[in-house]
Amino acid sequence: MDQRRLRIGVAGLGRAFSLMLPTFLRDPRVQLVAACDPRADARRQFAADFAAPTYADVAALADDDNVEIIYIASPHQFHAQHTEIAAAKGKHVLVEKPMALGAADCDRMIAACRAAGVHLMVGHCHSFDTPYLRTRELIRLGEFGAVKMIQAINYTDYLYRPRRPEELATAEGGGAVFSQAAHQVDIVRMLAGSRAIRLRASVGRWDPSRPTEGAYSALIWFENGAYASLSYNGYGHFNTDEWSGWIGEMGDRTSPDTYGSARRRLKTLASSNDEADLKAAGTYGGSAYKPPAAADEPQRFHQHFGPIIVSCKHADLRPLPDSIVIYGDEQRQTLPLPVPVVPRAEVIDELYGAVVDGRRPLHDGEWAKGTLEICIAILKSSETGADVTL
Amino acid sequence: MDQRRLRIGVAGLGRAFSLMLPTFLRDPRVQLVAACDPRADARRQFAADFAAPTYADVAALADDDNVEIIYIASPHQFHAQHTEIAAAKGKHVLVEKPMALGAADCDRMIAACRAAGVHLMVGHCHSFDTPYLRTRELIRLGEFGAVKMIQAINYTDYLYRPRRPEELATAEGGGAVFSQAAHQVDIVRMLAGSRAIRLRASVGRWDPSRPTEGAYSALIWFENGAYASLSYNGYGHFNTDEWSGWIGEMGDRTSPDTYGSARRRLKTLASSNDEADLKAAGTYGGSAYKPPAAADEPQRFHQHFGPIIVSCKHADLRPLPDSIVIYGDEQRQTLPLPVPVVPRAEVIDELYGAVVDGRRPLHDGEWAKGTLEICIAILKSSETGADVTL
Repeated sequence: MDQRRLRIGVAGLGRAFSLMLPTFLRDPRVQLVAACDPRADARRQFAADFAAPTYADVAALADDDNVEIIYIASPHQFHAQHTEIAAAKGKHVLVEKPMALGAADCDRMIAACRAAGVHLMVGHCHSFDTPYLRTRELIRLGEFGAVKMIQAINYTDYLYRPRRPEELATAEGGGAVFSQAAHQVDIVRMLAGSRAIRLRASVGRWDPSRPTEGAYSALIWFENGAYASLSYNGYGHFNTDEWSGWIGEMGDRTSPDTYGSARRRLKTLASSNDEADLKAAGTYGGSAYKPPAAADEPQRFHQHFGPIIVSCKHADLRPLPDSIVIYGDEQRQTLPLPVPVVPRAEVIDELYGAVVDGRRPLHDGEWAKGTLEICIAILKSSETGADVTL
Repeated sequence: MDQRRLRIGVAGLGRAFSLMLPTFLRDPRVQLVAACDPRADARRQFAADFAAPTYADVAALADDDNVEIIYIASPHQFHAQHTEIAAAKGKHVLVEKPMALGAADCDRMIAACRAAGVHLMVGHCHSFDTPYLRTRELIRLGEFGAVKMIQAINYTDYLYRPRRPEELATAEGGGAVFSQAAHQVDIVRMLAGSRAIRLRASVGRWDPSRPTEGAYSALIWFENGAYASLSYNGYGHFNTDEWSGWIGEMGDRTSPDTYGSARRRLKTLASSNDEADLKAAGTYGGSAYKPPAAADEPQRFHQHFGPIIVSCKHADLRPLPDSIVIYGDEQRQTLPLPVPVVPRAEVIDELYGAVVDGRRPLHDGEWAKGTLEICIAILKSSETGADVTL
């Protein structure tokens, strides 16, 4: 019997799509059947790669009867509108994180998908990574006792990677809180296994040439009594890969020897236009675009989002790119994780489970709205200098 | 010319004294000339080791004309009273951290020493460790720009080491906040280089058999705009020595192979009396007491208090047990630190500077009161669920 394949139309062939492309290429449960993008170069590349129709906008893509799911990977500020367009045509929606820029937009998206009877899923997000999903399952078995404290830290060069101007404008969904806390908060919520009720945070904005949040620290309290401490620093100095065995966010081997490369590359650019051009050139269909490595290259490590330690009453659990270490009362154990055959296959697991088997996805619209509300509360708490009740 | 030697009388021959003893033995600038302790065994050992008089209480020690400095290493709750007794007899005071259990006690101690015209110094505390003092100096040179964000993390087995009952009672100065935040907060304040103005925190108490704080996380804001995120977990699972090259708090080599040893030892004890006995036995003069290793054993690493990253505008600085790593805008540099010939010699540097050269110590009463106020604010913020203004 042939594998049932999900027929996906892609809205937006930018950076998020490039990062999901290895998954779409290697996972036999999906096929890309159409796409839209305002850039003609990207459309040409897609048509050539997939022998599939391309459109200039989402409305036209949503009219394609062969599409059953629209993967919305357009810039953040378009997520809500594009979701409504997709749902109105009866398409299931997989929308990139952050879900939207405000809770009202999330509500519109949830309502539109509910009214149309289609699934709404939000991702990829690193909370899909197997080390976190498996840690969550281990905690839910109960043998380690209740979650009490979570520590999540990530130091990267996020702010100095090539950016479009809007990615450096908080009001347009740019900056470390919308883009990076969206991962970290999602992971922490999932591991806490309880509703977040309060939050206190501080954000860092200390490079006027990149005028958005580059860093934050937050304390989050959960209904079950657990609390979490989150810190992110994207200013490109210390790199927490050093504490993850030099395995990078994408499950790739990283190295201390490339120190400072993001800043160095950026220095060669004269203007923010040059920077946006550089980003576009490296994106799907651009002049410097590199297709994903061949599928036969073995991937040994899972993706991750920096060091995380979950302290339960009777054990600390530490999800790593290839294993979970359980620091128990009596002994320390390492649970090896299966090697990831297809990167981010967890997204397809959940999407397939929803569309084919009717299982409610973990990363549905309500869930993702909760994460966005926390991200917005991080900004608000820092601004008002007080707790935010969630 | 002979070295001028500080003549120190020791008030309290317990655990804190044991940890300072290698310093007193090896540093030619000090000599131990008297001691007091309620335990006859400890007094006997001291008299034998130092051919020096011993007394049953601090008042008698303070009457010894040969003593010029009293090192107050009695239990926390006696620090204020013992400082007053010492000062009244014109002795300089070196008092262990935490300075006292409340700000009013600190004020009494400061006033007593000021009235008597004697120095008041608080320590040892890990903020004396060379890696932190040197990092502070580097920051003050200004080339890395202002401090923006500090991350301090420490996971230990603190709560399961042998304890006297009062060490597990917060009201008596027990628990991770009074005992361990006193180090971490002091280091962070010193590196921030500015007055702490606000704080939000959460504490963890999740083992009813050790009914005090075993963990905390805190956000602290400073006048200069910097903020710090501190986390401590003493519940004996994950150990941050793993992120410090398996160098322990005392600058010793630690190992993943001794996992769980503190809990295992504790399990062999039937009661809290047995536990206090075990602690006493291992303390100076006790039946299982081991004197410090010979002075010719080379010490390669500085003491430390877990991973710390100071993010300045243009560099992250990371103090390590043998070096400081500077993650700059352009490059990463490692500054090796001189090997510590005498452990904790930094305490004697400061004490000698004050008593002999009349230099105001960094760790004076006002400074240490500031740290205690933050520790108390950590407890208060967690209890009230709101910011504490400092």
